[in-house]
Amino acid sequence: MAREVKSDIEIAQACKMMKISELIEELNIHENDWEPYGHYKGKLSLDLLEKHQNTPDGKVILVTAINPTPAGEGKSTITVGLGQALNKIGKKAVIALREPSLGPTMGIKGGAAGGGYSQVVPMEDINLHFTGDLHAITTAHNALAAMVDNHIHRGNELDLDVRRITWKRVLDINDRSLRHINIGLGGPLHGIPRESGFDITVASEIMAILCLASDLNDLKKRFARIVIGYSSNQKPVTVKDLEAEGALTLLMKDALKPNLVQTLENTPALIHGGPFANIAHGCNSVMATKLASKLGDYVVTEAGFGADLGAEKFLNIKMRAGNIQPSLVVIVATIRALKMHGGVPKDQLKNPDTEAMKKGLGNLEKHVESIRAFGLPHVVAINRFVHDSEEEIETLRHWCGEKGIEVELANVWEEGGAGGTALAEKVVHEIEHRKNQFKPLYELEDSLLSKVNTIAKTVYGADGAVLSKEAQKQLKDIQTNGWEHLPVCMAKTQNSLSDDPTRIGRPENFQITIRELKPSIGAGFIVALTGSIMTMPGLPKRPAAVDMDVDEEGKATGLF
Amino acid sequence: MAREVKSDIEIAQACKMMKISELIEELNIHENDWEPYGHYKGKLSLDLLEKHQNTPDGKVILVTAINPTPAGEGKSTITVGLGQALNKIGKKAVIALREPSLGPTMGIKGGAAGGGYSQVVPMEDINLHFTGDLHAITTAHNALAAMVDNHIHRGNELDLDVRRITWKRVLDINDRSLRHINIGLGGPLHGIPRESGFDITVASEIMAILCLASDLNDLKKRFARIVIGYSSNQKPVTVKDLEAEGALTLLMKDALKPNLVQTLENTPALIHGGPFANIAHGCNSVMATKLASKLGDYVVTEAGFGADLGAEKFLNIKMRAGNIQPSLVVIVATIRALKMHGGVPKDQLKNPDTEAMKKGLGNLEKHVESIRAFGLPHVVAINRFVHDSEEEIETLRHWCGEKGIEVELANVWEEGGAGGTALAEKVVHEIEHRKNQFKPLYELEDSLLSKVNTIAKTVYGADGAVLSKEAQKQLKDIQTNGWEHLPVCMAKTQNSLSDDPTRIGRPENFQITIRELKPSIGAGFIVALTGSIMTMPGLPKRPAAVDMDVDEEGKATGLF
Repeated sequence: MAREVKSDIEIAQACKMMKISELIEELNIHENDWEPYGHYKGKLSLDLLEKHQNTPDGKVILVTAINPTPAGEGKSTITVGLGQALNKIGKKAVIALREPSLGPTMGIKGGAAGGGYSQVVPMEDINLHFTGDLHAITTAHNALAAMVDNHIHRGNELDLDVRRITWKRVLDINDRSLRHINIGLGGPLHGIPRESGFDITVASEIMAILCLASDLNDLKKRFARIVIGYSSNQKPVTVKDLEAEGALTLLMKDALKPNLVQTLENTPALIHGGPFANIAHGCNSVMATKLASKLGDYVVTEAGFGADLGAEKFLNIKMRAGNIQPSLVVIVATIRALKMHGGVPKDQLKNPDTEAMKKGLGNLEKHVESIRAFGLPHVVAINRFVHDSEEEIETLRHWCGEKGIEVELANVWEEGGAGGTALAEKVVHEIEHRKNQFKPLYELEDSLLSKVNTIAKTVYGADGAVLSKEAQKQLKDIQTNGWEHLPVCMAKTQNSLSDDPTRIGRPENFQITIRELKPSIGAGFIVALTGSIMTMPGLPKRPAAVDMDVDEEGKATGLF
Repeated sequence: MAREVKSDIEIAQACKMMKISELIEELNIHENDWEPYGHYKGKLSLDLLEKHQNTPDGKVILVTAINPTPAGEGKSTITVGLGQALNKIGKKAVIALREPSLGPTMGIKGGAAGGGYSQVVPMEDINLHFTGDLHAITTAHNALAAMVDNHIHRGNELDLDVRRITWKRVLDINDRSLRHINIGLGGPLHGIPRESGFDITVASEIMAILCLASDLNDLKKRFARIVIGYSSNQKPVTVKDLEAEGALTLLMKDALKPNLVQTLENTPALIHGGPFANIAHGCNSVMATKLASKLGDYVVTEAGFGADLGAEKFLNIKMRAGNIQPSLVVIVATIRALKMHGGVPKDQLKNPDTEAMKKGLGNLEKHVESIRAFGLPHVVAINRFVHDSEEEIETLRHWCGEKGIEVELANVWEEGGAGGTALAEKVVHEIEHRKNQFKPLYELEDSLLSKVNTIAKTVYGADGAVLSKEAQKQLKDIQTNGWEHLPVCMAKTQNSLSDDPTRIGRPENFQITIRELKPSIGAGFIVALTGSIMTMPGLPKRPAAVDMDVDEEGKATGLF
């Protein structure tokens, strides 16, 4: 470890970026097909996909992980590092990531632009307002909410039942005080009193729609289908009924354009859409992934949290919406997280403890089994941390060997692409030589309960799923409204394979409790909320925001 | 009227814009001193003002108006048209406007990019998300709110009195249902229950601070001074106490950079900051106005609503914060609005009615008197509408002549700059030949009550101001906290010189009722809320949003 240890933001700010116009030129993108946002960010035209319709698709590599520690497993870091490494071994790779949310950035987890020498830049822009996509979602979502309440206040021609408005409001911040609120108070000039609440912006159905839409026209059609609540005779009321789909489309037309930036090693990166994988489907946009597969021979993309969350939803939901066939899955594991799953307290994960790590391997094993259930080639990537011992790493390698699992060490945090060339070689080799028998886990025609049970059993290792009384009632409504053919989007804690965040490792003999079934008809799925998962996080006692600042030269400090 | 009548958006979309990079070149701005936002918008560096410190200041022309009709008097249109006209007569003019808010754009009034052949472009971008400044304000404001409630939830070390939190939340949308809300409901995991509410983003103190800050350092200092509420022993608690000023500055560092666009005739326009003049100080940013005065020999800038609102606050507040000396005031009047002030119902303003117009002239007269009280040269600009009769126009001209008021007809909506050359010539002549004896109406050392009374009497024509019981109590607190030396920011209806929106023309024998005094210590003024003015508007029965859409080519439609 001869290299001086710098913070992520110091490394990012010291990097020599290419002008975005040069990157655009390298990618052979015409002047009319992009727009600059500052000198180092760009938005790509919606026409570009159509123009590339005869270009063959690159191979899609999906990066997922085991159940992470609160700091994350470094999936973005591995995604960026693997993209850089593929370029180092002579392949043309493009990265496709999700946009960070200000909630975690200002809360506890920090940004989401990778780490160390495997970051996307300019990291401070990406982690803050970026090109405004999340702000557009917040605006469109809340404009619709205002139109809903205004409609009721102005005579309620659609006969909306104020007790059955399902469209809430959103903000891109962790604000627990807004989870449950009463609105419309203060008298007859100030709207109709009712119960409501705010979710975090990334949980908005508009975010899901942005990420699943195939073009501007599809975007508008999906908006029109959004159900905002029910009439007094319990019929769904949609955005189309409110005549709001045009305004939503107008507010979102620039946000739909994928964003282009670069990594520290000038590998192109499309960063677009950023739903959380615990409360939403957790993948970047279909348009960005598809466009990346036109611009590169290899696309490295991530799905949020563990393979039980983002990857499951990538492989059951996103692949259907976008007709995207992954070629291989990289499962990121860290020695730290394996020790956590072996029972080591979070403040002691730096200490070598091979026995604890061995005890935690069940978690990794379950995720490998899930990916195998999808019929996909896979490689376990050990994301190396400074405190990992050689013994721990060798034990993990040995265990993988015994189980017939391909494994490779990646030191991309410390070394950038150079630290990932072995992983890149292995990934390319597996794609070329391993059989791909990809198949989603369920058919759309399966009943909703059967879909949920399949995921609970095959992916989580549960005995099955049980529905709360409320969810049973909601299931009936879903059947009445003819929505049972939709895929299911599970909302579950990221900390455990079960719906109980305290059950580490590989839990057994448990049920998944479906507390609520929430139709997202515009997105095209039914959200199944499990356990006590919340769609608006809270801030910790000392939020990361307290350490953020701007120095005398106007540079950002305190971002990580 | 031979020309085919096109809508504003059709005219704007047909215009041949210069690339922003070409405009930057024309203005001799170095590559490092700006950033593109798309091909037709840019942000200028914060260093540019310092680099220009030895450049002499251009003349500042302030455009204001009489009390407007709900559609507005066309102040932005005249501002843009006059800028274009000044260039037509060989002067180097730069325009400085405010950023539109999505509230009116999606509500009833429409956008704020001028009209007809006097618009700033790209009008759809400017009227929608533009460069994200308002979204940054929404984000920073609500991040602070989340930190306040989180502080209380996490133990309340600062001993905040939950009944005395003055920092609300904001959204850039008209949403009456959020005016009065109860937050923190749902049990102990979800914060502390308390009463609160949302204002519209343009009413945020963060917007006022953006508009009044002289540089990034001043911005941070102002943020630190914001009072978010009071402790249980009634001491003010500030952003500094919460250690949040660094994060707010970081979130706002790009928003602080003035935005550059162009008019239909390629006149440079800085559009930056956009508080409403009825509920805030209503002027674009000090930094943009100052920078415009370095880039042009003439700056044409507007202040919101009538001269009783934006102009009064420009001349008593903004000039002090930015040390900006206006050279002349243009008072915009329309025949339509004069007829409204003469008692004609709003749906009959198209019909010629010279007598009614004459009856409405008192309103214009009062505004002229106010500008004279400030000692400033002034010209009345008649913003010509298609339905104005020659008799009405001649009668207005004649009346001005009798009163010794300089007046000129402007047909910039229909003809662009060419329709404003006579006005431009007159403005230049008056600046060169008329004595400028500018002086604000009050001294900072005056008591708060005396300042309010001065404005009420001199600008509104009231007999004086009366304080509600609540305001009297607040005045005492303001005195106790040593804030009485601050200027006062009046919040008052734009529809009348009085605080009663139904009293048109030139009301007499009335008092102004100060309902509430709200300290904005970061902005550096005390807001005095009069009558029943509200800081969160509502939507009309059929919001403008319903007509918004995107056509098959991806172009915006339905904006006006």
